[in-house]
Amino acid sequence: MEKLFCFALVFLANWIGFAESGRRGLLVPHKPDHEDAVATARWLISQNNWGVLSTISIELGGAPFGLDPTPRNAMKDARSSFTVSQFPIGTCGKKDPENPSCAKLTLTGKLKLVDINSKEVSVAKEVLFAKHPEMKYWPKDHNFQIFKLEIEDIFLVNWFGGAKPITVAQYLRPRINQLASVM
Amino acid sequence: MEKLFCFALVFLANWIGFAESGRRGLLVPHKPDHEDAVATARWLISQNNWGVLSTISIELGGAPFGLDPTPRNAMKDARSSFTVSQFPIGTCGKKDPENPSCAKLTLTGKLKLVDINSKEVSVAKEVLFAKHPEMKYWPKDHNFQIFKLEIEDIFLVNWFGGAKPITVAQYLRPRINQLASVM
Repeated sequence: MEKLFCFALVFLANWIGFAESGRRGLLVPHKPDHEDAVATARWLISQNNWGVLSTISIELGGAPFGLDPTPRNAMKDARSSFTVSQFPIGTCGKKDPENPSCAKLTLTGKLKLVDINSKEVSVAKEVLFAKHPEMKYWPKDHNFQIFKLEIEDIFLVNWFGGAKPITVAQYLRPRINQLASVM
Repeated sequence: MEKLFCFALVFLANWIGFAESGRRGLLVPHKPDHEDAVATARWLISQNNWGVLSTISIELGGAPFGLDPTPRNAMKDARSSFTVSQFPIGTCGKKDPENPSCAKLTLTGKLKLVDINSKEVSVAKEVLFAKHPEMKYWPKDHNFQIFKLEIEDIFLVNWFGGAKPITVAQYLRPRINQLASVM
């Protein structure tokens, strides 16, 4: 099952990363100012290619499970969260990964299977292979499935003093919000 | 709350890491042979100083939550899982972090608050500060609490072909098991 999970996880990271690529996320290698929570959150997702996707475990009596078998769990209970850290990106320097200024982000929502016949699939594969070329050559007969996270809540810690409030709308449409903020 | 969480998370990583230090985990910088699942699992925990601790969210209606507010959630529902990857250690080379040979581990169990008056606390602080010296200087008035994960299930992916079966006893007492295996 881990192959399904890997695909789901990487797709998830890249799906969000793809939204970045057309904007500023992938174009900004340096970490945004910690005062800009939205940019920091989007940067964390766009720069990471590893994160932990948590689902409600079927086998373990409802325990939260930070790895496989994600797809099976998601089919039973779509509630899920995806967590990434600035630490693996390598820009926390010598800071302890637990230092609040070494950012962490958790996106919570519903994990949905992407219809293999939908237009989303082509976009999903495009962004997936753009970031993970070797997956192009993974065995076709494993019948990988693609999942997406429909984000409902965003939790970011990127500085001292607790989590930064970010709405899903702000995260998904930063430019619109930027325009709104100057009108 | 994230400060409480950070402490809990780092303590967790180090608590297990501490068990390693007296044995082979911290003494073996290179990744164990993938055929030795127990050594690989212990190596992943001992070498990582970042992982994701998942709990059942109170605020988000029972969704699995891969970050704060862990302590508050743990008090309500102790079920938790801690996930680490070989990727942040930097030994996956140019491999994709989703490549099955770039190992991932999830420890699932109950997250328990360590009694501040127990002997465990001194051991906990010792191993915590040994791996995260800067935490010695975190504000005392934040009243950090220490949690431990009582492991009930171990899930390891460190090669192709799916998860490797490891019992908690094997994970916690590798030498005893090694002796048993040659008797």
